Amino acid sequence: MEKERTVPFNIPVEEAKQLLLDTVTTIDTEIIPLEEGLGRISASEIRAKEDIPSFDRSPLDGYAVRSADLARASKETPVTLKVQEEVPAGYVAKEPVKEGYVVKICTGAPIPEGADAIVKFEETEFTPLQATFFASVKPDSNIVHRGSDIQEGRLVLSPGKVLDPADLGMLASLGFPEIEVYRKPKVILFSTGDELVPVDGEITPGKIRNSSAYLLKGILEKNGCQVTLGGIVKDSLEELETSIKQALKEADLVMTTGGVSVGDYDYTPAVFKKIGADVLFWKTRLKPGMATVAAVKDGQLIIGLSGNPSAAAAGLYRAVLPALNKLSGRAILEPEEMTVTFLEAFDKKSPGGRVLPGRLCFKDGKTCIKMQSKQENGMISNWGGCNVLALVEKGRGPIQAGETCQALYLG
Amino acid sequence: MEKERTVPFNIPVEEAKQLLLDTVTTIDTEIIPLEEGLGRISASEIRAKEDIPSFDRSPLDGYAVRSADLARASKETPVTLKVQEEVPAGYVAKEPVKEGYVVKICTGAPIPEGADAIVKFEETEFTPLQATFFASVKPDSNIVHRGSDIQEGRLVLSPGKVLDPADLGMLASLGFPEIEVYRKPKVILFSTGDELVPVDGEITPGKIRNSSAYLLKGILEKNGCQVTLGGIVKDSLEELETSIKQALKEADLVMTTGGVSVGDYDYTPAVFKKIGADVLFWKTRLKPGMATVAAVKDGQLIIGLSGNPSAAAAGLYRAVLPALNKLSGRAILEPEEMTVTFLEAFDKKSPGGRVLPGRLCFKDGKTCIKMQSKQENGMISNWGGCNVLALVEKGRGPIQAGETCQALYLG
Repeated sequence: MEKERTVPFNIPVEEAKQLLLDTVTTIDTEIIPLEEGLGRISASEIRAKEDIPSFDRSPLDGYAVRSADLARASKETPVTLKVQEEVPAGYVAKEPVKEGYVVKICTGAPIPEGADAIVKFEETEFTPLQATFFASVKPDSNIVHRGSDIQEGRLVLSPGKVLDPADLGMLASLGFPEIEVYRKPKVILFSTGDELVPVDGEITPGKIRNSSAYLLKGILEKNGCQVTLGGIVKDSLEELETSIKQALKEADLVMTTGGVSVGDYDYTPAVFKKIGADVLFWKTRLKPGMATVAAVKDGQLIIGLSGNPSAAAAGLYRAVLPALNKLSGRAILEPEEMTVTFLEAFDKKSPGGRVLPGRLCFKDGKTCIKMQSKQENGMISNWGGCNVLALVEKGRGPIQAGETCQALYLG
Repeated sequence: MEKERTVPFNIPVEEAKQLLLDTVTTIDTEIIPLEEGLGRISASEIRAKEDIPSFDRSPLDGYAVRSADLARASKETPVTLKVQEEVPAGYVAKEPVKEGYVVKICTGAPIPEGADAIVKFEETEFTPLQATFFASVKPDSNIVHRGSDIQEGRLVLSPGKVLDPADLGMLASLGFPEIEVYRKPKVILFSTGDELVPVDGEITPGKIRNSSAYLLKGILEKNGCQVTLGGIVKDSLEELETSIKQALKEADLVMTTGGVSVGDYDYTPAVFKKIGADVLFWKTRLKPGMATVAAVKDGQLIIGLSGNPSAAAAGLYRAVLPALNKLSGRAILEPEEMTVTFLEAFDKKSPGGRVLPGRLCFKDGKTCIKMQSKQENGMISNWGGCNVLALVEKGRGPIQAGETCQALYLG
């Protein structure tokens, strides 16, 4: 068949990543209450329409003074001024500060007209009616200026930014009770393989429990997806076809595990073709994670990952994550790349290159990677605590403790 | 009053932290479906009751062989063996591999009895009935051993661990469809201050929008709490008293902002006493974050933070977070401490020490801190992107780019 011959096969993972990135389009948006915004992806550009704070204010409890009135104040020659009025936070002085007077002021209250400095309570002696000062004060002391936090016109939010607590605080201060964000992509994940039994199922000889689905669901959720486990689909063309067709109606992205190798029971790429999807690539040169396949049907991505948990996770992170980030509306598509120092030796050679999951740790100001002792394709335990993925380059030999490597920070 | 005089006042933040830690008790637990477990805190110790995998298996598609049969195989003297049967993943061989025979085997299938190595398809020439081998193979080649991922008896989960994707995968592989976790602490947060208007309210002179609540809600949610915004409470003893009393019935922890300084309108510590709570401390020597107060009523914590967003966030992270972690059931109470290199200079002196929010970044294998250009108490924008808190020590002068500092990693 014409189509089969032209499918890119066994391609470098960078090419696979690019094919997915070129294919996927960003999801639609929704309006949510600001207070539900943590971790969501901004869909709008927001510039400050006002200064924050919107007035000069006092950063402390004390007296608003005219600095000229205190020019000669010292320990030896203290100056006593009358309290003209008192301004709590939230209120404004009734009139400008007169010569020879001060205004008692609370933290956060606006600086009264005429005053050009604030002196702390603790530096004065006072009664309700007057305050005595023992030092002069420079004009502009202890004044938080209008716009010093956020200046009018400042870009406070760009599309694609993951909303953090400070973004929510800034948007609140600027008067945004709602915010436009990208919808969370809905992913339906099927697990294929006659060897699989459900988590609560009985293990008989040759069978294993469906663990990859839980690992992958966790990774997808960590990256902002809503994931539905579609359950186990037997190694049967028809069953998988029906499941994927139905899922495409409900999900933004459909994912499968298993059935993507060269064995006789690897139906996944065949099913992708059967439902009329264009296969983007079949297999990458990533180790582990080679058995990754991707297709597109009416603009929707269908991703087939390895049946091996470790290989599936590696394929997801290395080949698929940037496209998932584009789908989600994130501005930054690639995980941050960094240099890590190995805390322990890794004995194996990497003739074809490899990715190694590990945990980022900080030692003497350096970024280090700590790995689980064993690292094999079919494992799940070596992903424990993983937040960094070492990218061991092609042809590298065994790695000694203290050697460095490029790595992706997975957060 | 006797009580007032004995309240620890203006204490080092380490003491405040310890007082809170000594007071708080860990929340109760609940059982949830495993697939909802991401980010939740494990409440149980789980040891593997079986080996994973539970049988020796093939990591690839190929032939299960008796290595002795291939002892003399080479390019020059290839050895052809008959295919005895075929084992897909999920099934077992009907009988042991006989001398002179091989079993065709798929990735994940159990190694048939008698076979002691697997040879990849790609290294053979084959028909459905026979396979030809061009090299000998060492015994034990390409065999994934029973228990190589998780060995029976291994501790796979401890109480207090934050569940990550690999934990979920491991628990699935071991047959746990449900998991016991600590309940998410419910926090009700009130904002006090006559200067505050709601986010969607109108700004009149002297007023500001209630932004701290959104910043703090975000930080609390990032740290695993469920947060309800109790809204703005006017600077009135009665209103704050009623609000806190009601909230204590519904929440695990009650938090307020504002009203904890020395000004005449600082009601919060007074209200804590009025409702019969024991004030644990009032003010810490943390800058910013000095205006932190804490009380306990019938075992429930009530925390009063500064009305200034930056000071409130600093107080929350430095004084309160470890207690919050204990409440949540986390095993690790303190944020990870690390050394960071300043990417830019920080011009101010720190006579009393200070905390500076910033963003961790990775440069040449070093952990660096990148800060917003301006850093003032009342700000919120300087917390943008914050995931690390530099702990500038008491008495330190201006900091040059390239200098280092201890810091807390906030994740």
